[in-house]
Amino acid sequence: MKKPKPQRKPAPFAQVDLDRQERCGSAEVIFGSGKTPEQILQIALTLKKAGQSVLVTRTSLAVYQKLKPHFSGLQHDPTSQLVYWKKTKPRSGSKNIPDKSAPLNLVVCAAGTSDISVAEEAARTAEFFDNHVERVYDVGVAGLQRLLTRLDTLRKADAIIAVAGMEGALPSVIGGLVACPVIAVPTSVGYGANLQGITALLGMLTSCASGLTVVNIDNGFGAAMAAQRMKQLRIFS
Amino acid sequence: MKKPKPQRKPAPFAQVDLDRQERCGSAEVIFGSGKTPEQILQIALTLKKAGQSVLVTRTSLAVYQKLKPHFSGLQHDPTSQLVYWKKTKPRSGSKNIPDKSAPLNLVVCAAGTSDISVAEEAARTAEFFDNHVERVYDVGVAGLQRLLTRLDTLRKADAIIAVAGMEGALPSVIGGLVACPVIAVPTSVGYGANLQGITALLGMLTSCASGLTVVNIDNGFGAAMAAQRMKQLRIFS
Amino acid sequence: MKKPKPQRKPAPFAQVDLDRQERCGSAEVIFGSGKTPEQILQIALTLKKAGQSVLVTRTSLAVYQKLKPHFSGLQHDPTSQLVYWKKTKPRSGSKNIPDKSAPLNLVVCAAGTSDISVAEEAARTAEFFDNHVERVYDVGVAGLQRLLTRLDTLRKADAIIAVAGMEGALPSVIGGLVACPVIAVPTSVGYGANLQGITALLGMLTSCASGLTVVNIDNGFGAAMAAQRMKQLRIFS
Amino acid sequence: MKKPKPQRKPAPFAQVDLDRQERCGSAEVIFGSGKTPEQILQIALTLKKAGQSVLVTRTSLAVYQKLKPHFSGLQHDPTSQLVYWKKTKPRSGSKNIPDKSAPLNLVVCAAGTSDISVAEEAARTAEFFDNHVERVYDVGVAGLQRLLTRLDTLRKADAIIAVAGMEGALPSVIGGLVACPVIAVPTSVGYGANLQGITALLGMLTSCASGLTVVNIDNGFGAAMAAQRMKQLRIFS
Amino acid sequence: MKKPKPQRKPAPFAQVDLDRQERCGSAEVIFGSGKTPEQILQIALTLKKAGQSVLVTRTSLAVYQKLKPHFSGLQHDPTSQLVYWKKTKPRSGSKNIPDKSAPLNLVVCAAGTSDISVAEEAARTAEFFDNHVERVYDVGVAGLQRLLTRLDTLRKADAIIAVAGMEGALPSVIGGLVACPVIAVPTSVGYGANLQGITALLGMLTSCASGLTVVNIDNGFGAAMAAQRMKQLRIFS
Amino acid sequence: MKKPKPQRKPAPFAQVDLDRQERCGSAEVIFGSGKTPEQILQIALTLKKAGQSVLVTRTSLAVYQKLKPHFSGLQHDPTSQLVYWKKTKPRSGSKNIPDKSAPLNLVVCAAGTSDISVAEEAARTAEFFDNHVERVYDVGVAGLQRLLTRLDTLRKADAIIAVAGMEGALPSVIGGLVACPVIAVPTSVGYGANLQGITALLGMLTSCASGLTVVNIDNGFGAAMAAQRMKQLRIFS
Amino acid sequence: MKKPKPQRKPAPFAQVDLDRQERCGSAEVIFGSGKTPEQILQIALTLKKAGQSVLVTRTSLAVYQKLKPHFSGLQHDPTSQLVYWKKTKPRSGSKNIPDKSAPLNLVVCAAGTSDISVAEEAARTAEFFDNHVERVYDVGVAGLQRLLTRLDTLRKADAIIAVAGMEGALPSVIGGLVACPVIAVPTSVGYGANLQGITALLGMLTSCASGLTVVNIDNGFGAAMAAQRMKQLRIFS
Amino acid sequence: MKKPKPQRKPAPFAQVDLDRQERCGSAEVIFGSGKTPEQILQIALTLKKAGQSVLVTRTSLAVYQKLKPHFSGLQHDPTSQLVYWKKTKPRSGSKNIPDKSAPLNLVVCAAGTSDISVAEEAARTAEFFDNHVERVYDVGVAGLQRLLTRLDTLRKADAIIAVAGMEGALPSVIGGLVACPVIAVPTSVGYGANLQGITALLGMLTSCASGLTVVNIDNGFGAAMAAQRMKQLRIFS
Repeated sequence: MKKPKPQRKPAPFAQVDLDRQERCGSAEVIFGSGKTPEQILQIALTLKKAGQSVLVTRTSLAVYQKLKPHFSGLQHDPTSQLVYWKKTKPRSGSKNIPDKSAPLNLVVCAAGTSDISVAEEAARTAEFFDNHVERVYDVGVAGLQRLLTRLDTLRKADAIIAVAGMEGALPSVIGGLVACPVIAVPTSVGYGANLQGITALLGMLTSCASGLTVVNIDNGFGAAMAAQRMKQLRIFS
Repeated sequence: MKKPKPQRKPAPFAQVDLDRQERCGSAEVIFGSGKTPEQILQIALTLKKAGQSVLVTRTSLAVYQKLKPHFSGLQHDPTSQLVYWKKTKPRSGSKNIPDKSAPLNLVVCAAGTSDISVAEEAARTAEFFDNHVERVYDVGVAGLQRLLTRLDTLRKADAIIAVAGMEGALPSVIGGLVACPVIAVPTSVGYGANLQGITALLGMLTSCASGLTVVNIDNGFGAAMAAQRMKQLRIFS
Repeated sequence: MKKPKPQRKPAPFAQVDLDRQERCGSAEVIFGSGKTPEQILQIALTLKKAGQSVLVTRTSLAVYQKLKPHFSGLQHDPTSQLVYWKKTKPRSGSKNIPDKSAPLNLVVCAAGTSDISVAEEAARTAEFFDNHVERVYDVGVAGLQRLLTRLDTLRKADAIIAVAGMEGALPSVIGGLVACPVIAVPTSVGYGANLQGITALLGMLTSCASGLTVVNIDNGFGAAMAAQRMKQLRIFS
Repeated sequence: MKKPKPQRKPAPFAQVDLDRQERCGSAEVIFGSGKTPEQILQIALTLKKAGQSVLVTRTSLAVYQKLKPHFSGLQHDPTSQLVYWKKTKPRSGSKNIPDKSAPLNLVVCAAGTSDISVAEEAARTAEFFDNHVERVYDVGVAGLQRLLTRLDTLRKADAIIAVAGMEGALPSVIGGLVACPVIAVPTSVGYGANLQGITALLGMLTSCASGLTVVNIDNGFGAAMAAQRMKQLRIFS
Repeated sequence: MKKPKPQRKPAPFAQVDLDRQERCGSAEVIFGSGKTPEQILQIALTLKKAGQSVLVTRTSLAVYQKLKPHFSGLQHDPTSQLVYWKKTKPRSGSKNIPDKSAPLNLVVCAAGTSDISVAEEAARTAEFFDNHVERVYDVGVAGLQRLLTRLDTLRKADAIIAVAGMEGALPSVIGGLVACPVIAVPTSVGYGANLQGITALLGMLTSCASGLTVVNIDNGFGAAMAAQRMKQLRIFS
Repeated sequence: MKKPKPQRKPAPFAQVDLDRQERCGSAEVIFGSGKTPEQILQIALTLKKAGQSVLVTRTSLAVYQKLKPHFSGLQHDPTSQLVYWKKTKPRSGSKNIPDKSAPLNLVVCAAGTSDISVAEEAARTAEFFDNHVERVYDVGVAGLQRLLTRLDTLRKADAIIAVAGMEGALPSVIGGLVACPVIAVPTSVGYGANLQGITALLGMLTSCASGLTVVNIDNGFGAAMAAQRMKQLRIFS
Repeated sequence: MKKPKPQRKPAPFAQVDLDRQERCGSAEVIFGSGKTPEQILQIALTLKKAGQSVLVTRTSLAVYQKLKPHFSGLQHDPTSQLVYWKKTKPRSGSKNIPDKSAPLNLVVCAAGTSDISVAEEAARTAEFFDNHVERVYDVGVAGLQRLLTRLDTLRKADAIIAVAGMEGALPSVIGGLVACPVIAVPTSVGYGANLQGITALLGMLTSCASGLTVVNIDNGFGAAMAAQRMKQLRIFS
Repeated sequence: MKKPKPQRKPAPFAQVDLDRQERCGSAEVIFGSGKTPEQILQIALTLKKAGQSVLVTRTSLAVYQKLKPHFSGLQHDPTSQLVYWKKTKPRSGSKNIPDKSAPLNLVVCAAGTSDISVAEEAARTAEFFDNHVERVYDVGVAGLQRLLTRLDTLRKADAIIAVAGMEGALPSVIGGLVACPVIAVPTSVGYGANLQGITALLGMLTSCASGLTVVNIDNGFGAAMAAQRMKQLRIFS
């Protein structure tokens, strides 16, 4: 048997999923962590060329500066580590925002000041997808009255994203106060027995309030996307 | 200072939450595990007296037999370990089923035959709350074609409950195929590195498909309640 | 060198700590788990002979029956798994109850019905040591109003023992409502991500309410003993 | 249905809990970790304006320098990472120090030299709240005589805060020697099987000495606050 | 290529290591757990035929009864779960007990009554190998005086085996009191945060007393074998 | 909107993957754990009807007895918990055994007698798929000579399945002695720090011998299937 | 007894295993992590002197620069962190590449762009050992169609190395599509519940696709070596 | 009751244990990690003043430079991170080296080159206490012949310290080859499933070779101290 000579074939580093919007209801979002600015730029340009908006998560000033020359009106929010660019003038009937969907009225709650960066990742991602967001911050359960004074706001929400670190009890309390979907986001805020957010995560999963759902630690983006999927329940023919 | 004589005051073992339906959109459900048949009967009678239906989870034949004389038409499903009794003739305007809500079309998927008991807990709970449920079972990702042939069913769902043990990959694949909410339920099916479902749980939380949400291991009931909360998005004035 | 002949010397299986009351403020208590009824009887008789009362934790009917012939008025509570016998007629100045101590007014809270066995272990142990106990049960945070209606009771307590399983959020909420010591007791009630009570334990340790302290999982006895130590703060010369 | 235009409403990053002193017995303390100097300054000024003293934990020189111009007599202790400012001239009857409370005589023990930073966080926090603190350092159980020579000091304490890393055995030994409350603080001192303090934490929770209570790893502040709650037992009408 | 017909070759279930005594200083011991009585009998007979004594650990009455007809003078100790048979009349120069070795004076300490079964596994295994064993039981660190009254015994030992569950602090305290080798044996005694002995194990590994060594949880046998290896240090030409 | 009436549609509990042999090189195998005898029988009959052989893993005598009337020549091996039935007279060109494949010469090693049930699951599964298996049992690394005397056997293998519990060092040593594929199977044999096989699993994954691969704890079946996949490397046109 | 004077004997820091190629089928590879450039140079020169090629893994530019003067044609790939040097003109019959072996056609799949560095470690190591490698990157299961369009490539492979982080579902899906060996490589890509790759690792071990094997987290090198061992199945006399 | 004025009493940061040598057989050693150079200097000077030698572990060049002016002949070994100073001219009968003790002949084995820093901590600590040390490095079990060629050296040792990372199998293999004490030291060398040395630690604790003992991860110092304790077995009157 003749031994063939080994050779190296180049492989594309990414295959941009341009059909995701039609398939999953929202366009591909770029997870910035672990990607070089150059890689992010290439993916962003591919999305732009396909007529789609661009959202980069877990990113930095360096990425913002790399993309800025190519995207007029590019936004950068350091708190939430998001960089985003909305396609201007989505014509009626365009792919980005199907006519038949309606924005959700979301409330994003944060237990403490240190949870705000995760809460903002959720809030701004939701806003990027054209939803209304009301922020209710620093309402941890150790000072219950702060939450109870906002009860009206909570009860008017279509869905609530509840962000909390430490023992993560906020979603349990909220879940017992409202009927709408509550998406719990544990954060890595805390130390020692908090185990970088594992404790809050496990606590939310075993909540005594029924019907809560949970996303990964610090995953504000994921919570917003879960809300976005719920928007499908508002689409009518 | 005079030493008062200590004395024992009786305390009620349970405080039935009769306002939960109004507050949270669905009546209190009895978590059967760790309660005696007598305790369950007392709570169930309290609910009945308040004009509410009764659902007991994680329960057994013994509980069914204890309740049967008091609830005509009581149901018991051994697979899902549920016992339930629906109030007959809910008059229009009654508290149990507000006129303005519409049933959801849910799909409950199970990766393997061993996941069916958890899937049925989800499916029957959802049906108890008057939703439509389509079952799509034994569609694990190692035989992808079994899932792909059901794609139409999946795409017509209002929300999908995806139940899987072992590595728990099923929700990731479904999440990439549909736009609606996907509620992932890890099960304790598997052995060794499965760690009684912890592996499936962690995998679902770190899914590469965005917008999935997760409930506790084997918590089919919780997934159905999460879907029930989404029904609020369908209520119109 | 001559090889000595090995020989077996008997060793006592237990060394009863008869000075503990003077040293630590309360007499030795017998941890029943893992001891035979015969071993427990021997230790109990040693305590009785020394003029001390007897409390056995984590024990069973078999132990009760073994001790009953030797201790008139012996009590057995199956819920808390306690067996106890109070020395009759403690004369003034006797070792068991120093004149200078005053009973505490304790409140024992339990989040759910399934947590009651642990709560009772705490409550009855505290009563054994001549404290007043008020029970506030089934007040988990998913139905906040149940707790808030008992706020007056909570605020009058000298110390509160807060027992909770699942995510263990009850002590956090209580800690934010009262000024007195709050002793948190996680229970193993729950399943899956509850990890046999580890989740509740970790959550209580990372509580956002400051000044909580925590004991081992299901350790109602330990919480009562922690309260008992606080009685020292009430002793006056 | 008309689609409303999404808009961004500002949310306050913090809601200072000015009633905490009345409710919980001590004013709100600022957890410095994860907050910017600017955020800490704003909260501190709010407290000052409300006539309350200021204590910032887990903080740094940068925060001290930010606050210094606004708080005359501000203190910074690098070992314990505390910054604090006591309101001068608390008039009789003022909210900060209710007349009816008496300072506690606390003993803070540390097992090794490396545990001192945590011990100092406890000691200085307790002193901030006007308690007496005796320090007993470097008394780990591998050199038992060092602890035993301080037995008199331990026995005169109202409560003991016992700080230890590695295997965390110090509180067990102390708990067997005294009758007063013992608050155990595990530290992250150690390596390998110490698991950043988890081992000491678990060891303290399973102590063979009864009635110990435990706070989070490295949480000297929490231990002092637990002692502060005990001060309520000393308040008389 | 012709496909050969698969066939099944029998394999021996065990290969008794008859040279271990010469190689490792003590004969092969039979780990009883997970072996059938028949398998244990076969191995025991092989050892006997080779002129060696027989020790079976983690075993039961059933095994004792299976072996009894074949081994006159067979012993069974239910506490330590050991079955053993000593070869009678070891002639001078025989393999079992080399003339040049001298018995060790061992002390086996146990923290609590519940640790005695593990302590006895250590003590009786050491006695099987012709060492002297002094038992010092129920000397946990919460009642320090019980240990300190035995200090003379501890200081005369060649080596100490220290057995403890819960937080496992006993070896740390002993290690600080004596100069000889201390072999720490964690036990699975305890509950909750004890994690079936993992806590005691980790605590012993991070002990503040230097020069301790540790064996597996509940491994009294292993501790005795570690002591047996130390006997080599006593062999002289 | 009219509310449709919910109704229950039956769902098949299993979808037998009849194309797996063509797709994956071997027919579907029935994982017996968690399935009822009736469910297993239905699946087995479906496979038989499709002209395929039947292998059931993790099964019991009850399943054997349920299937026996339907499958002449059915085998049951209690050690490996396998039940299997080979289609008689596979005609040349049939789907079950493609002509072009050649049996592998496998060696299955087991470190201890207690690992044999897992080893037999591997060995008999491999034999079911028409491979040759040589068994090399009780060759743990604490008695290295037992392994080294079988070196010739190891070096003639096409692939080696190395089964070990406790510290799981056997595959590392074998991996350093041979050039062929080594599939490591950790077992749950051991106690305490063994963590039900997790320790052996982690040890095999971090082996200092390069090119080992690992399967799940106690997964002898999986190891045999991995070997079966390697048979593809022996297929020639 | 006279006390001998202690003295220090030098020990070689490494013993290069020059026979590994003959014994294990491939020459020793230098694991760069934790070794100084000087140590790596010394080992590399020893290999070169013995007529062997040199491959250094987990290494850096500094090592490349240290070795460059001594190895003409030395390669450095920053993505995979490999440095390598192939012996020129391997004469027929030389040790490095036995005439009788044939290169494998490998496919290396990566789920996401962030997994590419691990995938390249696998791919380039395999190429170093003269195998053909086809790269199939960014084919995670959330966009299934990307993988399915490459099915032909997958089905022509001798073996597949499947690299994935997050939930690690890619190998399960591939394992259900092909018959050849699939070597799963978990990566540490992800955050929170990903636990630095532990989640992907556990998921792959409990895959519902049978016959997968797994290597350590981020161990692309190990996967290539596992493939290299499979090359033995292609050697014919 | 008059409220006493709180005041701050200074506490010594360390209590040097000058009697340890007499009590435990070797003088106090300074654990350098987490102590400032100034603190270390003060402790070292206290030891010197008491006529004792000085050994500092886990330390740095900065400490060496701080101490150098005060200790003539001070040594620093960067590999083992030790700084040490031997008291010159220990007169016969002095406390440091009791006449009656004899040096041990130790062998320190290391599995890989990356384990050498831990091995050197053991070796140099043992030499500091006047023992003989033979180093046997890079003898991991994947290249067994490297260890077997040193068998004579191993068999002549009084005790062996076996240092290994990754799966930590080296002590198991050595334990099966020799009769003397084997002290196993796991190292944090490895990645992924190695879990910073936890895997090697657990593996050594569950070793199939009996009589091994284990110390903490990377604790070369502790292993040397364990050997030092064994020296007591060599003391004769």
